[in-house]
Amino acid sequence: MTRSPVDEPASVAADLTLPTWSDMEAAALRIEPHVLRTPLHRSRQLDEASGTEIVLKCENFQRVGAFKARGAANAVFSLTESSAARGVACHSSGNHAAALAWSARRRGIPVWVVMPSNAPAAKRAATLGYGAEIIDCEPTLAAREATLAEVLQRTGAVEIDPYDNAQIIAGAATCAIELMADDPLPFDVVMAPVGGGGLLSGTALAVAATCPTTVVWGAEPLGADDAARSLAAGHLIAQTAPDTIADGLLTSLSPRTYRAISSHVERIATVTDDEIIEAMRFVWERMKLVIEPSCAVPVAVALRGEVAGRRCGIIISGGNVDLAALPF
Amino acid sequence: MTRSPVDEPASVAADLTLPTWSDMEAAALRIEPHVLRTPLHRSRQLDEASGTEIVLKCENFQRVGAFKARGAANAVFSLTESSAARGVACHSSGNHAAALAWSARRRGIPVWVVMPSNAPAAKRAATLGYGAEIIDCEPTLAAREATLAEVLQRTGAVEIDPYDNAQIIAGAATCAIELMADDPLPFDVVMAPVGGGGLLSGTALAVAATCPTTVVWGAEPLGADDAARSLAAGHLIAQTAPDTIADGLLTSLSPRTYRAISSHVERIATVTDDEIIEAMRFVWERMKLVIEPSCAVPVAVALRGEVAGRRCGIIISGGNVDLAALPF
Repeated sequence: MTRSPVDEPASVAADLTLPTWSDMEAAALRIEPHVLRTPLHRSRQLDEASGTEIVLKCENFQRVGAFKARGAANAVFSLTESSAARGVACHSSGNHAAALAWSARRRGIPVWVVMPSNAPAAKRAATLGYGAEIIDCEPTLAAREATLAEVLQRTGAVEIDPYDNAQIIAGAATCAIELMADDPLPFDVVMAPVGGGGLLSGTALAVAATCPTTVVWGAEPLGADDAARSLAAGHLIAQTAPDTIADGLLTSLSPRTYRAISSHVERIATVTDDEIIEAMRFVWERMKLVIEPSCAVPVAVALRGEVAGRRCGIIISGGNVDLAALPF
Repeated sequence: MTRSPVDEPASVAADLTLPTWSDMEAAALRIEPHVLRTPLHRSRQLDEASGTEIVLKCENFQRVGAFKARGAANAVFSLTESSAARGVACHSSGNHAAALAWSARRRGIPVWVVMPSNAPAAKRAATLGYGAEIIDCEPTLAAREATLAEVLQRTGAVEIDPYDNAQIIAGAATCAIELMADDPLPFDVVMAPVGGGGLLSGTALAVAATCPTTVVWGAEPLGADDAARSLAAGHLIAQTAPDTIADGLLTSLSPRTYRAISSHVERIATVTDDEIIEAMRFVWERMKLVIEPSCAVPVAVALRGEVAGRRCGIIISGGNVDLAALPF
């Protein structure tokens, strides 16, 4: 069994290791004391509007409000005692920051988060609330990476990347494992949103390992469609100047997640921001679920009829929104 | 066993019949094919903030988005064939209108709804969508009652009052029955919001019949506190000029619901609209549940620490809100 190198310094780069089924099973056991087994939700109205049976796996109810708790918990609790004692670090302005801080607090180890100065106040407060030390930086990728490198050198902490990490992907895979275990019927399609690709990689690997008759689709905003363009081109194309309301999906695939997705994902479907907002409103109004714009992306694909006649599971990735800045 | 007189004309007034335990058990069986067994939700953050264990019974996920589906289904499916054939009618601007229309469609009988001209467009659309004939009237109680009387005389329909009806109360009681059945531990307190008092009456009767060590509280907006004033005075005091964001709780108790509540409810706790909005925001932001302001009322009581140290179940009554007119 290939193990992920989370105990190694980040400088051991160009690592494309993906989790095996054993890694995913181990992740499920490892994180079980820490995360929630989130419920599945269905809606007759969603079924009617999409022309098929849709089952939502509701990670908006997960700890820290997003599936990110799974990967972070798996990565943090996979560390050896000596590595863990060094603490963990990342750069993030979003759910991964809070999830890593939450996981580190559960393990009782230090955590440093490099956060751009334009990070949402709520995300900053949540990350601080879990006991992280936040290091501010300019809101550019270069500044984030340089500041994190400085923090890693100064503290000796272990970097936990939000998606380019096999243990993070194994943790994310447990959403799809639970979805398939808790629903009695097989799915024709399982869909997840795609940003950096950790959730979609984990979903695709879990489905491929357990139910090869089910196909996996990614769902992506047109304004940040690097995954769709990468799959079409047959090689990784980085996202430049993303422009979408789905603020969790701005990042590009990494070589590691591209490897998983190009091998195991049948299709990346894209939707407009108008479709995303309409789908978000549908889920809030009809299903009474608070979901982020990012999770509305696969719902929008379904509402356009793309999976009509095919039983479809959708990973609802999170529910952290700013109620003062809703799009409706 | 005393049966409720839903098959009798509304003119047989001054009826204070309340459902027996047998009526409530019968209601649970009768509506089981039609309604959802809604889930229970908990939150560590809510527990911490309220100083106790809180369990929410999530009727926001119920058919038509509110517990009203239970009472309406019970009343409609209790009718004899000959009564049902006459159809059903009510005056309502809210969830009961949609619930009655939905129930009538399931039974395949006609339904007339008298609706004030200022009823929310979404409620009107939902009621029409379930196939009701809507009769418009001026937005006063007198106009509503006079118009309904005319409709009843013209059509011969059976009136189904939103709360002053023993079968409606028996249906509402099934929320608390499921709450107590689906949670393994006894509650010290069960709380429900109170407007006309149908939900609180059913909750109190169900708890009294099955778990006499549990006390029942009502939760009421200060701006529509007729139940609190009635219990304090020892006699029914009607609400005049209610003023609260909790638009589902504007109505007064009836003699029937006053009878149940004065016998079986320990206390009516009141909260301000600011507390209601804060509690609603808490549930949306932290628990990712879309709930109406009315359901936030008992949550606000808990957040003020009123049930600290006492295990508490709360009936979340519905989730129908206008996303274009949120209070935050």
